Amino acid sequence: MYTDCYNSPMPRPIITLTTDFGTGSPYVAAMKGVILSINPEAAIVDITHAIEPQNIFAAAQVLAEATPRFPAGSIHVAVVDPGVGSGRGIVWARFVAGNSGSGTAQQYVAPDNGLLTGLARRGPPDRIVAVTRREHWLAKVSATFHGRDIMAPVAAKLSLGLMPDELGPSQSELVLLVWPEVEVVPGKVRGAITAVDSFGNLITNITREMLADAPTGEQTVITCDEHQTQGIFNTYADQPEMTLLALFGSSGLLELAIVGDSAKIMLGVNVGTPVEVAW
Amino acid sequence: MYTDCYNSPMPRPIITLTTDFGTGSPYVAAMKGVILSINPEAAIVDITHAIEPQNIFAAAQVLAEATPRFPAGSIHVAVVDPGVGSGRGIVWARFVAGNSGSGTAQQYVAPDNGLLTGLARRGPPDRIVAVTRREHWLAKVSATFHGRDIMAPVAAKLSLGLMPDELGPSQSELVLLVWPEVEVVPGKVRGAITAVDSFGNLITNITREMLADAPTGEQTVITCDEHQTQGIFNTYADQPEMTLLALFGSSGLLELAIVGDSAKIMLGVNVGTPVEVAW
Amino acid sequence: MYTDCYNSPMPRPIITLTTDFGTGSPYVAAMKGVILSINPEAAIVDITHAIEPQNIFAAAQVLAEATPRFPAGSIHVAVVDPGVGSGRGIVWARFVAGNSGSGTAQQYVAPDNGLLTGLARRGPPDRIVAVTRREHWLAKVSATFHGRDIMAPVAAKLSLGLMPDELGPSQSELVLLVWPEVEVVPGKVRGAITAVDSFGNLITNITREMLADAPTGEQTVITCDEHQTQGIFNTYADQPEMTLLALFGSSGLLELAIVGDSAKIMLGVNVGTPVEVAW
Repeated sequence: MYTDCYNSPMPRPIITLTTDFGTGSPYVAAMKGVILSINPEAAIVDITHAIEPQNIFAAAQVLAEATPRFPAGSIHVAVVDPGVGSGRGIVWARFVAGNSGSGTAQQYVAPDNGLLTGLARRGPPDRIVAVTRREHWLAKVSATFHGRDIMAPVAAKLSLGLMPDELGPSQSELVLLVWPEVEVVPGKVRGAITAVDSFGNLITNITREMLADAPTGEQTVITCDEHQTQGIFNTYADQPEMTLLALFGSSGLLELAIVGDSAKIMLGVNVGTPVEVAW
Repeated sequence: MYTDCYNSPMPRPIITLTTDFGTGSPYVAAMKGVILSINPEAAIVDITHAIEPQNIFAAAQVLAEATPRFPAGSIHVAVVDPGVGSGRGIVWARFVAGNSGSGTAQQYVAPDNGLLTGLARRGPPDRIVAVTRREHWLAKVSATFHGRDIMAPVAAKLSLGLMPDELGPSQSELVLLVWPEVEVVPGKVRGAITAVDSFGNLITNITREMLADAPTGEQTVITCDEHQTQGIFNTYADQPEMTLLALFGSSGLLELAIVGDSAKIMLGVNVGTPVEVAW
Repeated sequence: MYTDCYNSPMPRPIITLTTDFGTGSPYVAAMKGVILSINPEAAIVDITHAIEPQNIFAAAQVLAEATPRFPAGSIHVAVVDPGVGSGRGIVWARFVAGNSGSGTAQQYVAPDNGLLTGLARRGPPDRIVAVTRREHWLAKVSATFHGRDIMAPVAAKLSLGLMPDELGPSQSELVLLVWPEVEVVPGKVRGAITAVDSFGNLITNITREMLADAPTGEQTVITCDEHQTQGIFNTYADQPEMTLLALFGSSGLLELAIVGDSAKIMLGVNVGTPVEVAW
């Protein structure tokens, strides 16, 4: 059926799913059913379905954090799609640079609504295609669930070797979110909390590189809302229980944590709260 | 071991799981361990483990919605089983018709307690077998966990090619739930909310076909509890934020949604609340 | 690359994951990406990611309950790791005895912080290796996420056939948790609630064997906090709705349950509450 337009398939194609459907949603199961009906050999991996409903910014961070770790050629489907059925487009895009430093290429199929902004900030995609050709979609497309009716079948066919060119015309740019910027001046860096993990650790957009000049000792003061802590530590175990400490987390971003408890709850802060580092 | 009674196995057998054990339950993991110990090649797919405890009606809807999307021959194990250890039977059943319109056959292994009612309403199973022959179960069967001790091994052996006839005698009918009916009269349709999705959208049992005569414009009034909205839209993006709107969801059922928020919370309604459409 | 030190790989290697990262955590996804990048053929199975943060005791019970059901040779990675980055070690261990009675060998990769205590109580591991040789880890190891940087790559390489001896030196003992003991005297057994399942059933550390002398009828009285029930039943369906009953659960442990409701909520008790059986 696809003899003309298919390249050689991956040895064991991996398709990941990132949605805001909720863990255990039958919507997720329907997408898996569609994918496996087209390619029963696909290995489907859940990134998360626990994105806060319609929170594109949260999903954009998760995609940038988790997906570059996957094998080269993995296909990542992301469905956080408040504009489903409206004029927003759907894109296929490929990124080569990743946070794993491996330089492997990852493919994405997603609504063109900013979901790929976190990835794009590390380097532009090397290819974007507008997903417009209906022959690769389900025969019947609903107005409210393009994840099942368009993105799942497109991902499954890509995993069988369909060439991205077949999906539609090339596109030059992605829709990008406005991203919270960090202000870096001598002796001071001002960023914000951009995510909270399941332990209640507060993750900022301040990188290790931005703090290259900051000493790690007590003379460096980290302020978040009315809370302060001194010094930047290596790991949670470096301070006693119930202590607020700052450290570089596993993604190289500055984190605030309460040892053995939830910093989010104890400090009463959340995504968006400013964080300042001064020395 | 099974040379006499096994048909040719599926190329990559798919076994899905639907339970009320809770996401991440060790009970689910035990079932997966049993399945993989019998057939390490089985591809296990979670439909959901987030069914409300012992809510057979909710699970029956999820099974009908999600499982017909899977490849022909997939084996679906459902364990919402308040009567475990009592006299209730366990069944294998096969359904051919599905909501995907693909007409592919799906197999089910479940307690005979109404779990397959949603499927059966679209057309009767073409085969039912009572699961009674203990040689296909675990050697030691507990009184409280037949999912692990009976259904998991039976599904795994089916995936290896065991013929359903080997499971026990044929059975002519399934236990069926009383299902909420829709009243259709000229100019009016009366149904109810039957499910709420993770976005808080209210899903009814009123189909697109039941409203074939209703205009989609303002003259059609949808009433749910003391709340009203006019017109039936195509998608969420057709109305401004925080507006209550009605639309046909991705399964072809009438839904009530608040754009950008949870209709369940904003309206204070739930499964069982009547919904009326009048024009 | 591993020609010298690898034994023959498993036919379809299974790697399970047990963490406290939360369902849908991007940390879990990052571990899966690392594993699949090293061994794309690995079948990854989630045991649970819903362990209460840093609750090693809860995870130790889940590992003992769920993992022995898996096929021989399965590799179980457990990451509940409050001491990450401190002096705590990481171990590989193999256990042969299991609760399935199958006597199959299971492999574990985990911080050496007591996570394997539940398994070890059923019989000591037949082999322990300290995971110390960095050439099998990711090139860059963070101070806060050894699950991704050490345990995931080690598990993936084991699944490709790496010999455990290559991971580091042998170790003679595991760190073990203090475990709640059961007092058994003639006519009386005193234990405690050690876990609560997703139905709110209260699971104790009192085994069927410890109650071998107790009659199952009304003369046996079970006391939990100020609540009492008489007799030990076979299954939940043996009593009417909303009744407190005692039974042996699917792991052979005494459970207290409220038929059709949550005993945890109805009784207002939790892990640690003493349970006494007297006859």
